[in-house]
Amino acid sequence: MELDLHLYSVRTDLALEAKELAEGPQRNPIPGVNEEVQEADGIKITRLQVGNEMGSRAIGRTVGNYVTLEVPALRGGDTGLQQKVTEVFAREFEDFMTRIGIGKNSKALIVGLGNWNVTPDSLGPLVVENTLITRQFYELVPDQVEPGYRNVSAVAPGVLGLTGIESSEVVQGIIDRTRPDFIIAIDALASRSLERINTTIQIADIGIHPGSGIGNKRRGLTREILGIPCIAIGVPTVCYASTIVNNVLEMMKTHFGQGTPHTKKIMGMLDEISENERLSLVKEVLEPLGHDLIVTPKEIDEFIEEIANIVASGLNTALHEAVDPTNVGAYTH
Amino acid sequence: MELDLHLYSVRTDLALEAKELAEGPQRNPIPGVNEEVQEADGIKITRLQVGNEMGSRAIGRTVGNYVTLEVPALRGGDTGLQQKVTEVFAREFEDFMTRIGIGKNSKALIVGLGNWNVTPDSLGPLVVENTLITRQFYELVPDQVEPGYRNVSAVAPGVLGLTGIESSEVVQGIIDRTRPDFIIAIDALASRSLERINTTIQIADIGIHPGSGIGNKRRGLTREILGIPCIAIGVPTVCYASTIVNNVLEMMKTHFGQGTPHTKKIMGMLDEISENERLSLVKEVLEPLGHDLIVTPKEIDEFIEEIANIVASGLNTALHEAVDPTNVGAYTH
Amino acid sequence: MELDLHLYSVRTDLALEAKELAEGPQRNPIPGVNEEVQEADGIKITRLQVGNEMGSRAIGRTVGNYVTLEVPALRGGDTGLQQKVTEVFAREFEDFMTRIGIGKNSKALIVGLGNWNVTPDSLGPLVVENTLITRQFYELVPDQVEPGYRNVSAVAPGVLGLTGIESSEVVQGIIDRTRPDFIIAIDALASRSLERINTTIQIADIGIHPGSGIGNKRRGLTREILGIPCIAIGVPTVCYASTIVNNVLEMMKTHFGQGTPHTKKIMGMLDEISENERLSLVKEVLEPLGHDLIVTPKEIDEFIEEIANIVASGLNTALHEAVDPTNVGAYTH
Amino acid sequence: MELDLHLYSVRTDLALEAKELAEGPQRNPIPGVNEEVQEADGIKITRLQVGNEMGSRAIGRTVGNYVTLEVPALRGGDTGLQQKVTEVFAREFEDFMTRIGIGKNSKALIVGLGNWNVTPDSLGPLVVENTLITRQFYELVPDQVEPGYRNVSAVAPGVLGLTGIESSEVVQGIIDRTRPDFIIAIDALASRSLERINTTIQIADIGIHPGSGIGNKRRGLTREILGIPCIAIGVPTVCYASTIVNNVLEMMKTHFGQGTPHTKKIMGMLDEISENERLSLVKEVLEPLGHDLIVTPKEIDEFIEEIANIVASGLNTALHEAVDPTNVGAYTH
Repeated sequence: MELDLHLYSVRTDLALEAKELAEGPQRNPIPGVNEEVQEADGIKITRLQVGNEMGSRAIGRTVGNYVTLEVPALRGGDTGLQQKVTEVFAREFEDFMTRIGIGKNSKALIVGLGNWNVTPDSLGPLVVENTLITRQFYELVPDQVEPGYRNVSAVAPGVLGLTGIESSEVVQGIIDRTRPDFIIAIDALASRSLERINTTIQIADIGIHPGSGIGNKRRGLTREILGIPCIAIGVPTVCYASTIVNNVLEMMKTHFGQGTPHTKKIMGMLDEISENERLSLVKEVLEPLGHDLIVTPKEIDEFIEEIANIVASGLNTALHEAVDPTNVGAYTH
Repeated sequence: MELDLHLYSVRTDLALEAKELAEGPQRNPIPGVNEEVQEADGIKITRLQVGNEMGSRAIGRTVGNYVTLEVPALRGGDTGLQQKVTEVFAREFEDFMTRIGIGKNSKALIVGLGNWNVTPDSLGPLVVENTLITRQFYELVPDQVEPGYRNVSAVAPGVLGLTGIESSEVVQGIIDRTRPDFIIAIDALASRSLERINTTIQIADIGIHPGSGIGNKRRGLTREILGIPCIAIGVPTVCYASTIVNNVLEMMKTHFGQGTPHTKKIMGMLDEISENERLSLVKEVLEPLGHDLIVTPKEIDEFIEEIANIVASGLNTALHEAVDPTNVGAYTH
Repeated sequence: MELDLHLYSVRTDLALEAKELAEGPQRNPIPGVNEEVQEADGIKITRLQVGNEMGSRAIGRTVGNYVTLEVPALRGGDTGLQQKVTEVFAREFEDFMTRIGIGKNSKALIVGLGNWNVTPDSLGPLVVENTLITRQFYELVPDQVEPGYRNVSAVAPGVLGLTGIESSEVVQGIIDRTRPDFIIAIDALASRSLERINTTIQIADIGIHPGSGIGNKRRGLTREILGIPCIAIGVPTVCYASTIVNNVLEMMKTHFGQGTPHTKKIMGMLDEISENERLSLVKEVLEPLGHDLIVTPKEIDEFIEEIANIVASGLNTALHEAVDPTNVGAYTH
Repeated sequence: MELDLHLYSVRTDLALEAKELAEGPQRNPIPGVNEEVQEADGIKITRLQVGNEMGSRAIGRTVGNYVTLEVPALRGGDTGLQQKVTEVFAREFEDFMTRIGIGKNSKALIVGLGNWNVTPDSLGPLVVENTLITRQFYELVPDQVEPGYRNVSAVAPGVLGLTGIESSEVVQGIIDRTRPDFIIAIDALASRSLERINTTIQIADIGIHPGSGIGNKRRGLTREILGIPCIAIGVPTVCYASTIVNNVLEMMKTHFGQGTPHTKKIMGMLDEISENERLSLVKEVLEPLGHDLIVTPKEIDEFIEEIANIVASGLNTALHEAVDPTNVGAYTH
């Protein structure tokens, strides 16, 4: 029962949002969590470092590095901005690899998580379709591979409902056989903020954790389990319906708190509603279809294609020295 | 401004729901609207007839016939039930054609509205892919067409964002050239009730109207405009986020109304919030992404494929005498 | 019977090849056909002008302009070359529009012919998916369209087998409704030469003619029928199996002609086989599956995606002044 | 060099054709190869048993069992026949499992080999999309699985060019992790006979061998390598262009052999052409695009969907006791 209610509380896959929730409205600094913010050209870069167990517990995220790009104007369809974001993402991803010790010749396996049949969950497979794959040449004609190209393979393992197999099992099986040096896992995420949907990219070195993502991806793809670094790239493409409902309740408090003495009284009473009462209210609203209702913009197909293109082009640029912003278009479709 | 707020009020594409809203909680009968309900095998059939202008104004729907199949258990994946619904839908559709005077040899053009790239909007194109097309044989080898097959063509005109052309313009152009006797337009709808998503099929003889459906389908496909009957088949596959927010507010009233004297006081005050206050609250919550946020179950890909299969098989059975429930599987993919 | 045999003779959709066949091995110049050849960077451009009826009859092609780009190395996957070809194609297409009197503000309708379910026939639909569509903005918010963007719409009408409707009927219906100033029709072609498959692009102002293309596209899309200019862009993606068989017979003649006195005798006798004998031999070989067998490289998916990307990027650059080679990647997917 | 020429000789993936070639025109029985033929309702079933090494060497196939269904009329689009073939295939597959000792509770992994982007190579992925998957229920809610459903998972591992990884490596990795009791591998094949394209289904217990199939599927999926039985289901969907060329040469011999004394002389001389001369002739014809040219009917999309449906429905019926011919349509899409 408590578990059930937990599903209706505010859910986010972004470390940045978890930190914001932990800070509260007063934005109290959190011990053990280091933050560095940089902003230029309409792109806000936040580099979070969860340095120890205390910080980890405080925000409910694993110890590790999290880089978040926020580009509020990204849904506007401005192709110049898209190119800029691709370049910034490529540079940040390259820096990220360097920082966690991944060398120029390390072999990469790109994993596109998610369900290709559900538009907002298709980010991972879409990125995989557009990345430059070279491992076959290293295997078949190693002496003919031109310099400047890293050994890269890629797979979209599908979801449990399509294959009957956890995607993590598929990936682990492939790792055992092909022995890459590191993993890049791409996944669609859920945000608690509508503004961040399709405007935000998160890079993290903590792998993919149970229950993350919007698909059925139970067990983890982590360094501990796989024995090699696993960089997770996530883009929020949906939020849960429960988030919307929670937002209404929040908004009502604010709304009534700013009103007449009469409405202020309502707010006082809303404040008194216990957390459990609140959650059961949310549950009641969403009951008919369960807690897995997702909220997504109607134009999700365009947004997802644009952002998949940014991530794929960025990865191609960051992974292969021979690819740069002037020729990257030729490698993606 | 008023227009804007209007977008955040309760929206539904189902005549049944429009009627329920007009009836209010007391379920007052509506003059000019005739209703006949029948229930068997877990399938509820409601035949609404909006007989005159008064009824039309009362529920905000065009004068015409509306048949709705509700099958609450349909999302359960029970293949026996799916077969049963296919048969009932085929029978109802055949009766509907007879009732509005469509003969056995009338030529049909099936129009699959919606965006094939957005899963919950892909119902129309999916149905088109699975219907049995025969017009080419009537054109090329008319004397070789076996008896029992009607002249049927089908097209998925795409959406404005993909083609730059209103789907109604595409369809009208095709009608001018190919001269079908009637149109069957299939479209994904929005419901105001989560229970009805992917469990309900509506058949209506009123065509497709401006602003209906979840895609960009402005101008209408109606008998007045096209000069031939246009049967619309609709399945709610989403509801709007604004519906969820409105549901929360409703639910809170009920919730507090059943509680302690203390919470009852909250309800009283909630009741006093004006309609405009309510709408502006909804607007505020959804502002960041606008009013076109859609809510859909995560497993939408499976639901949509199942229900597209039901509609396509049902149409094949109803349109062609040579196709019956025992061989219909062979015609759909 | 004669008709049947005709289907097994050498078939080509390229004017260049029709001219080569008419010239014969001696390459006799053909009255009424003007030719201009230019070669640079591995790209051979041939501008054919069929100036009068005599030329037209001689090569069996309509009076008009034909520009052919041949890039033998294009299948090599060299992204630099692909970019170069995109630029050259864009420039040639722009010149072509100017030459036939299409102005900078003329409204374009792009038509992607062919069957999206058959890889070598999916060129047209693939190009349509990747072109920049603007007509909806001109219709809905005309004063907000930024300068430098032409009014462009696009449609993939499907093939007879999928819709029951000739693609030309669909297109004519759309033209009647949307009144574009000119048409650009993209289609996969058949070549008589294996070398030209996926390495050649033809631009012509003669529309699409009955029986052209590898799909079922009977009636024509021509200036005479439509009343507006129709530029056809074609890429050979297959050759017919009958071509292969004919090639074998040709090759045998050459082979034996160069051999010993003994084999020379064979050649002599092969020469004596009548044309009808030859055709009935071809027919006999292909009988079991009919004359519509197509021959295509196994890696057709990669080739077709690359060349669709070249055509789409080239069109985007040529049609919109605001798009140029440095930003074109952002408009295609 | 010899290797090169070898690629241009007659190639087939069907054991039946290998046997026919070995028998020669006189149809001499082959020691070590046992054959049983049965024919009814337009379906010819041939059960070959390659019993020992001698038989294996004679026809160039591994020791094992091969069942072939030939249905010449299958391309005719007769839905009644398709249903019949589905039933016969299901029955034969069930018998085959019994014969090689696979129990009713053995866990199956279905592997759909091939490239989903190339229509004639997409059979495997198409079948996987339409099979009934249950393993997830056995893993998550084992006590809720209804009786009559076997534990089945399924995967389409892609091809080397898409992933950079051999499909056999992907499959072996998944087997290591998920421990199925047997494998069913589905693959598109090449035939040497145009008649057999899309009309033939082969079931064999010899796994998938290096170089088989039309895709890049090197290393093997065999019992020896995997440690579990691997049933291969193959359908010829193409033949190689070299086969066509060889057919021409054969046909010419026959043709001239039946003619006048004059043409008979040609035949005599054609007979004298050495095997090497013949192969180098074939090579010369196909040189421009290499030996991997495939020949396929233009309507391949319809044929492949129909036969994928037959195989998927047949497998669902054979694998799950709860599925039978009357309800199988509900499980495939």
